Amino acid sequence: MSTPATDIPIPKDFLAAGVHCGLKRDPRKPDLTLVVSRRPATAVGVFTQNVVCGAPVTLNRRRTPSEKIRVVAVNSGNANACTGRRGLEDAERMAAMVAAACGAEEDQALVMSTGIIGEFLPLDKIERGIKAAADKLGRDRDSLLDAARGMMTTDTVPKLAGRAITLGGREIRIMGMAKGAAMIGPNMATMLALIVTDAPLRPAAAQTLLKAAVDESFNCISVEGHTSTSDTVLLLANGAAGGEPLAGDDLAAFGRALSEVCVELARAIPADGEGASHLISIEVAGCADRRSALQIAKTVANSALVKTAIAGADPNWGRIVSAAGYAGVPFDPAGVSLHLNGLLLYQGGTPVAFDRAAVSASIRDRRETSIRLKLSEGDAEVRFWTTDLTAEYIRLNADYHT
Amino acid sequence: MSTPATDIPIPKDFLAAGVHCGLKRDPRKPDLTLVVSRRPATAVGVFTQNVVCGAPVTLNRRRTPSEKIRVVAVNSGNANACTGRRGLEDAERMAAMVAAACGAEEDQALVMSTGIIGEFLPLDKIERGIKAAADKLGRDRDSLLDAARGMMTTDTVPKLAGRAITLGGREIRIMGMAKGAAMIGPNMATMLALIVTDAPLRPAAAQTLLKAAVDESFNCISVEGHTSTSDTVLLLANGAAGGEPLAGDDLAAFGRALSEVCVELARAIPADGEGASHLISIEVAGCADRRSALQIAKTVANSALVKTAIAGADPNWGRIVSAAGYAGVPFDPAGVSLHLNGLLLYQGGTPVAFDRAAVSASIRDRRETSIRLKLSEGDAEVRFWTTDLTAEYIRLNADYHT
Repeated sequence: MSTPATDIPIPKDFLAAGVHCGLKRDPRKPDLTLVVSRRPATAVGVFTQNVVCGAPVTLNRRRTPSEKIRVVAVNSGNANACTGRRGLEDAERMAAMVAAACGAEEDQALVMSTGIIGEFLPLDKIERGIKAAADKLGRDRDSLLDAARGMMTTDTVPKLAGRAITLGGREIRIMGMAKGAAMIGPNMATMLALIVTDAPLRPAAAQTLLKAAVDESFNCISVEGHTSTSDTVLLLANGAAGGEPLAGDDLAAFGRALSEVCVELARAIPADGEGASHLISIEVAGCADRRSALQIAKTVANSALVKTAIAGADPNWGRIVSAAGYAGVPFDPAGVSLHLNGLLLYQGGTPVAFDRAAVSASIRDRRETSIRLKLSEGDAEVRFWTTDLTAEYIRLNADYHT
Repeated sequence: MSTPATDIPIPKDFLAAGVHCGLKRDPRKPDLTLVVSRRPATAVGVFTQNVVCGAPVTLNRRRTPSEKIRVVAVNSGNANACTGRRGLEDAERMAAMVAAACGAEEDQALVMSTGIIGEFLPLDKIERGIKAAADKLGRDRDSLLDAARGMMTTDTVPKLAGRAITLGGREIRIMGMAKGAAMIGPNMATMLALIVTDAPLRPAAAQTLLKAAVDESFNCISVEGHTSTSDTVLLLANGAAGGEPLAGDDLAAFGRALSEVCVELARAIPADGEGASHLISIEVAGCADRRSALQIAKTVANSALVKTAIAGADPNWGRIVSAAGYAGVPFDPAGVSLHLNGLLLYQGGTPVAFDRAAVSASIRDRRETSIRLKLSEGDAEVRFWTTDLTAEYIRLNADYHT
């Protein structure tokens, strides 16, 4: 689903590493990631809207936007969330450790944590991991893959994406890594993404572009509709590609490439949803505004009935249309049409005659199911991705001792 | 869960019947219900907020509030939804049939339909059923049970509740029947309830009381969070208890009894959720206003992660607290406490030490699980009921050919 690691363009003056420091049980699995810029970088973030948030989110919110970030440390296995005042002190100590290990100032470091909530960070293990990772920093494919693996929790594959574009004679590289949002077993996992680029960007422009890119990517996916306490997307831009900060058409072109990277990473998350048998892509078109389209798409995506219907290869137009109907967005039911895998099921407020077995087979035979719902209220549209809901998902999430 | 049929007080001058007319396959199962008042009754309704709604909802919306309704006909097996203009004509014909069969005027009838959507009502079967039911109308327990069964779809038990109260020397009786909201297999089932009373009520007062009762009962349950296209609650008040329309304290006392009937019926719906192993009751207290409390309760209730945790007897405070956190209601996380089955799990923004095995056993050993979440924002609170989420639920909902 995501770009092969061998094709990822690594932005200039960035280094990465991932090591195992004992937070995960399996010693072959990296659980601590460092991404370092050789020079101070513009850094901005987009964070969880959950009222209850992890200590790293609080720390990163305080330190961004910035023009001097040098290093980001990520640990998996422990989210440092719901840990009160000590949680924040621990996040600050982790940031200080990584700054020291990489020769940066204390306030040039950001941190992300994912994993179990309600337990304190094992700082001794993390400190050993940070030192080991600082000694392994590299720009090769293995370093990149280890870094992406170091943030994984229930993900089955590392998620990487990249783009290289030429703007005014400069080659600009963008690279991103992410981990998934599925919440399995006793863990409270989280969506984390870190995107680095050698483009020169002013903080305000970086913040605007990242927010726009997140809105059409990470904010357009759901696995079970549960917003984690630690969801974070960070963008670091160190300007190593040279020249003045991007502006005008160049800035817009960079924004499009950034969105592509984010969409590729975001799609990879439900595609890797544990216990899921389908990636469901939902297009909602013909809406009065984007907000309405998003609200409808999200409501369809979070309907357990729609998700179980897809798991069962059931072309159940009724569940899809009625989910749209209760999204809280007014629309004319007579103007609704629905395609499933390109086949028309519903038009003008009523179902049409369709080959049920053929549509069912088209769901069963593919890993991805496409739902396209068109209204007649305007021109706004949105794409959204989710997973189906299977008995296997329930087994994974209900099993107390897993 | 609901009141035994033998204890239901039947309001004066009401008759009921339920018959089989061929809409359900099993000839032992009633699929057509009549409830008739011997005299014109005040009638009000509360209807689905789904933009896409069934034809019977449109008809009932037009005919209520009213002071002259005589009869309500309900069929199961076909919801007469998503059937365009002909659907509304069919609903009107069904109403005309039942008025004729019961000696009422055409506009004295209301209709409710539940079952498959997107197919036209088989009016010939329904007409035969209406005539047969009109011949069987009675005030005995069997008539009542048949009427309650005639509206069932995936429900496993008929749902009845009643209260008798004395107001100013008059005995006032209230009786209600309901069917569940679970959506199983290819059907799009619906929550329907019909409440009848011999109290004398003006339409405006009846509408106000019914809305208030529904807000704390049927609007406080969810099985899968899917709002059906046909959800309807009707109240008929025929005044046969005698005297002037209720006012003042008497009206308030009636309202409380009406709410009790609605809460009893509403709770019976998730308690009978197909494939569910637990009824989950969620109390959210300490909120700034009721709307905030409801929003938090609903978000916790609709979290697949909370529902699977209860199915797995997992005292997962993290999923509950974080679901509250993304409900869109601002609150101080440090003021949150959480009890599960009366045992404290979380307080002051962090988990407390608790006996995990004991809490898990308390979930596993009971059919009902109680979650109590207390905030420190104010005095408003709400009760909400839902089901857990089991592999059996998925099997029932995903199996294309069931």
